[in-house]
Amino acid sequence: MRTKAVFYHAGCPVCVDAEQMIADAIDPERFEVEVVHLGETKDRIGEAESAGVKSVPALVLGEHPYHINFGASIADLK
Amino acid sequence: MRTKAVFYHAGCPVCVDAEQMIADAIDPERFEVEVVHLGETKDRIGEAESAGVKSVPALVLGEHPYHINFGASIADLK
Repeated sequence: MRTKAVFYHAGCPVCVDAEQMIADAIDPERFEVEVVHLGETKDRIGEAESAGVKSVPALVLGEHPYHINFGASIADLK
Repeated sequence: MRTKAVFYHAGCPVCVDAEQMIADAIDPERFEVEVVHLGETKDRIGEAESAGVKSVPALVLGEHPYHINFGASIADLK
């Protein structure tokens, strides 16, 4: 079974770059990567915060948040 | 041909966690991941800085630096 990975972003340039590089580099045989645009799906901001996400872009892997560079803080997306 | 990816760290807890999760999640069929401990191989700090790395852990992929969470700044490793 593949591990679930969620890549949260907000459409910012830093986010798009990280998505194309990091999210795309994840091994698809072991991980199922879901890409979530928090600017467009604000109802999932709570879920991201629960996983420990403070800013985007961020990748939640195995319930741990990994903030990749800095695009925008979660607070600014609300 | 696989793309070269370099994961720079300094043995800190944040680094070790990111290495085990992010560096390990990279698709080995498309990327060749080299793990570099900058605390032990200080002669490669210049190379990391040239790639734009400001702190560790960081992954350099396709000549772009991706800082993953924050463990230590490069300046503190010198």
